Amino acid sequence: MLERIHHVAFAHAPDAPIHEVLEQALGLIVAHEEVGDGFIERMLPIGDGYIQTLEPTGPGLVQRFVDRRGSALHHVAFSVADVRAVVESLRLAGVPLVEPAPRRGGMGTQIAFIHPSATGGMLVELVEGGTRPDDAT
Amino acid sequence: MLERIHHVAFAHAPDAPIHEVLEQALGLIVAHEEVGDGFIERMLPIGDGYIQTLEPTGPGLVQRFVDRRGSALHHVAFSVADVRAVVESLRLAGVPLVEPAPRRGGMGTQIAFIHPSATGGMLVELVEGGTRPDDAT
Repeated sequence: MLERIHHVAFAHAPDAPIHEVLEQALGLIVAHEEVGDGFIERMLPIGDGYIQTLEPTGPGLVQRFVDRRGSALHHVAFSVADVRAVVESLRLAGVPLVEPAPRRGGMGTQIAFIHPSATGGMLVELVEGGTRPDDAT
Repeated sequence: MLERIHHVAFAHAPDAPIHEVLEQALGLIVAHEEVGDGFIERMLPIGDGYIQTLEPTGPGLVQRFVDRRGSALHHVAFSVADVRAVVESLRLAGVPLVEPAPRRGGMGTQIAFIHPSATGGMLVELVEGGTRPDDAT
């Protein structure tokens, strides 16, 4: 069902621009930047996946997470071939989702989040489509 | 320098056996289990990487993390070809490490942790060697 790790997301305070640190310390480079609802997401390719950084720009989920937890790993995302089919299969299995149907994510993807109550507190995102690092860079 | 995401680690309370949940909900299977210093680590292959779960079994880093944060994503690990060379290069660049030299990790690997103060709070592990999921399963 899950193909690979698509990205690992790290939410950080606006005054802690971790993408700059990751570039200087580890050589990871921001290949894509996109404005979301109350945050900026940045994608740093690594292998066939990404590190994603989430910077809050106003009220919303990312700001609330950073207020509560500080800068911390936020979620892990897995590539799937057909997110609608996986969501339907999870629904039939009684696994709760954050939203009832997949929606548009960054980089032209379709995404869905499994509710953390179903995964012992780990926020899991499912990602279909979009460019791979080889295409994006 | 970094080749790919080797694993993403999730620390959980002993009464929240997330590996069972991940198996039931997502089809991820524990391929390897190993006792560490105050914890059990379990490796669940996904693509060419792993989800790692960390369950505290006594006093130590994992127990302290779970006491402070609850069940949460703990660190992200990157594959490197030569961990000793990367550690030396980081040291020369002034990037602090948790320990001065690489040490033995799970599954026959050599590992080192970058100090989170160098990465905006993200705990980063470097991993050399060990089996890949295709070998382990």
